[in-house]
Amino acid sequence: MRDFLPEEAQMMKYIEGKARKIARLYGYGEIITPVLESYELLAAKAGEEIRSRMYAFEDLGGRKVALRPEFTASVARLVATTLRNEPKPLRMFSVGSLYRYDEPQQGRFREFWQSNYELMGSSKPEADAEIIMLTNSLMKAVGLKNCVFKIGHVGVLRGILSQENIQDNVQNEIMQLMDKQRYDDALGLVKETEASNKCLAILQKLVKVKGGKVSEVLKRMERQVRGCESAVDAVRNLRKILELVSESGEKIKMVVEAGFARGLEYYTGMILQVYVPEIDRELSGGGRYDKLIELFGGEPTPAVGIAHGIDRIMIAMQKQKTPLKMKEEKTVVVIPIKENLKGEALKISRTLIGAGIPVEVEVMGRKVTKALEDADRRKMDYAVIVGERELKEGAVVIRKLESRQQKTVKIVRIVETIKGQSII
Amino acid sequence: MRDFLPEEAQMMKYIEGKARKIARLYGYGEIITPVLESYELLAAKAGEEIRSRMYAFEDLGGRKVALRPEFTASVARLVATTLRNEPKPLRMFSVGSLYRYDEPQQGRFREFWQSNYELMGSSKPEADAEIIMLTNSLMKAVGLKNCVFKIGHVGVLRGILSQENIQDNVQNEIMQLMDKQRYDDALGLVKETEASNKCLAILQKLVKVKGGKVSEVLKRMERQVRGCESAVDAVRNLRKILELVSESGEKIKMVVEAGFARGLEYYTGMILQVYVPEIDRELSGGGRYDKLIELFGGEPTPAVGIAHGIDRIMIAMQKQKTPLKMKEEKTVVVIPIKENLKGEALKISRTLIGAGIPVEVEVMGRKVTKALEDADRRKMDYAVIVGERELKEGAVVIRKLESRQQKTVKIVRIVETIKGQSII
Repeated sequence: MRDFLPEEAQMMKYIEGKARKIARLYGYGEIITPVLESYELLAAKAGEEIRSRMYAFEDLGGRKVALRPEFTASVARLVATTLRNEPKPLRMFSVGSLYRYDEPQQGRFREFWQSNYELMGSSKPEADAEIIMLTNSLMKAVGLKNCVFKIGHVGVLRGILSQENIQDNVQNEIMQLMDKQRYDDALGLVKETEASNKCLAILQKLVKVKGGKVSEVLKRMERQVRGCESAVDAVRNLRKILELVSESGEKIKMVVEAGFARGLEYYTGMILQVYVPEIDRELSGGGRYDKLIELFGGEPTPAVGIAHGIDRIMIAMQKQKTPLKMKEEKTVVVIPIKENLKGEALKISRTLIGAGIPVEVEVMGRKVTKALEDADRRKMDYAVIVGERELKEGAVVIRKLESRQQKTVKIVRIVETIKGQSII
Repeated sequence: MRDFLPEEAQMMKYIEGKARKIARLYGYGEIITPVLESYELLAAKAGEEIRSRMYAFEDLGGRKVALRPEFTASVARLVATTLRNEPKPLRMFSVGSLYRYDEPQQGRFREFWQSNYELMGSSKPEADAEIIMLTNSLMKAVGLKNCVFKIGHVGVLRGILSQENIQDNVQNEIMQLMDKQRYDDALGLVKETEASNKCLAILQKLVKVKGGKVSEVLKRMERQVRGCESAVDAVRNLRKILELVSESGEKIKMVVEAGFARGLEYYTGMILQVYVPEIDRELSGGGRYDKLIELFGGEPTPAVGIAHGIDRIMIAMQKQKTPLKMKEEKTVVVIPIKENLKGEALKISRTLIGAGIPVEVEVMGRKVTKALEDADRRKMDYAVIVGERELKEGAVVIRKLESRQQKTVKIVRIVETIKGQSII
């Protein structure tokens, strides 16, 4: 686990702010769920890999609990309980920290941050399209370039496997190997079942269908799965989603992969990951999960959602040297010349702060020259020097630190002097 | 533990936003430390009560860890390690969730949120004054009324107890009873030591010194502790701090209490809690802790800090019916009349979102009347109805939901129509 010092923390909060703005613009209401949830809830549909890496323990009341490894189980719990009777669609946004006991690697930490969007109640392709579009809006809002959206549909592979009556738990294992792009191992597992040779042949070809023009890839996919109705439906569903995105005018670089799968077991439809060339791991991941809410005891509720890795987006921005677009502010130090002027210095700081100007009061009891040196080092913009002589005239000395120009200014004029930069 | 639904989550984030703004204005850089820290670190100086209520467990690597019950230990760790050589003063801000296995009560939850400010490196009274002032700035920024600052100084009681050679661990117990205002039990504990009768008499009178005019209370305190040099110094330090606050012009309702103590063991100087009449528990708590950094292996570093309970501030705002000051925004639904117009609807939503207007696209495939009913129920401002006939003219129908007026508007004019409210 890591600490974020001010520069990185500011970037994290900047990204979080953009994520919140996108939520607001797309109508996603923010919800806050606990970091600590019942182990059973979190483990229910997470997939073996995540389950085995959860921070799980017994609390002082003897309940088995865990730190959340993802948001979706908590959101699903809410929708199955408190929000059970809310009219659909429900658009929900969360942001916060998540926990997995992974081996630390580049861009992968045991405590990590995500912004999470879930659209519940709609099975329509425009809902999937919305999730893809808002993801692109976020990437644009933070200023990332060259994003690639890797897109697939769980229903294609699952359709083929289900037609061969392969059990769900075996399917899950196969999908997890596919997720890691260990296609040979995945196909090996299929061979161990009673799957037909035809099925194997289809899968072997299918995992190679990727890249190139989206409409072409979709055609090839549909051709491969011909005869398996649910897989054909999956391809057509994916085509409709991507057509809607295209019609919206949103320009997105997409790579469609027939063999694309995701580790979480609960996906049922379109799946999505976002990459930038500078980082191996995905920045965002999501998809459709139509069965999850009922698994948590709620009404059957189709749903689609996505999570964006805030710390990964930060790393991508650092690598791309993406500038933060923030309002520039003048910063000020206020230095009393003498012990007995501290109260006056605090009073002046209140005036500046009240006007929205960031101020630091000298609290080390240093002499003016020392305090000015320190302000210089920290690249502050102005020093307000509070001295007895000027104070008698209701004035202070304002010094522009970079140019070292200084001038005596009436206290009533401090704010306009610093904001307007006109006098110095 | 609780969930926060959108209305409350918005309020929590509003308060967090104000806390971050105050941090910026007072020059506190944000840092993010992990929710999970080493048990040893968190337990070191937390006080027995908090220690016994920590969520502690062994992680998968066999390390004893715990969910943080407060921020200060983590910040102290940073200052003793990574930030060891940073020039002082260091002003640091954190915000996030904390965990204590308490019995749930009104305004007390096992997961709670705080914004935390620490000013490290200065032993001067202006540093203490700054913490008091920024706390008041935060209360004003969120709009709370009738705040009362309860103020004391740990050095007064500790000075008396130390003069009698009462051991630190016994002092800690006494202070914890004082914190709970169990003065008789506290004095009972003192009796069990070898403290002199004179000491007992002083303490008995001291715990009754509170309320009334600040300067008067300070005088009475000083009179009571006469002869105990360190206690007298403590009173004088407190007087200087409060004089500076007063000279700054910051208007704060203060109650000074000689018998005021805090549960955390690490305080060494001024201590502070903020109350509103509507809630029994404090909204904020903090004070000076000059020995903590060296206890964590850092250089001796005087420090003063405060934590504000974000969820408690929210409850106080709810009770005081404090309005949130937020930019009002027009919200829009976009409804395609026919299946084949979904792409157009998404395209129009992009235009609006690009102009900063919050938009929800109809994703349930409902007929226009149903979708309008739903938008009405949710108090949206406008509906944009996308129909074939209007589209041929490059136009859509814009309906003002409250007045039910509607009008056909060219697509290129949608943004100005909704922003300007001029046409409808």
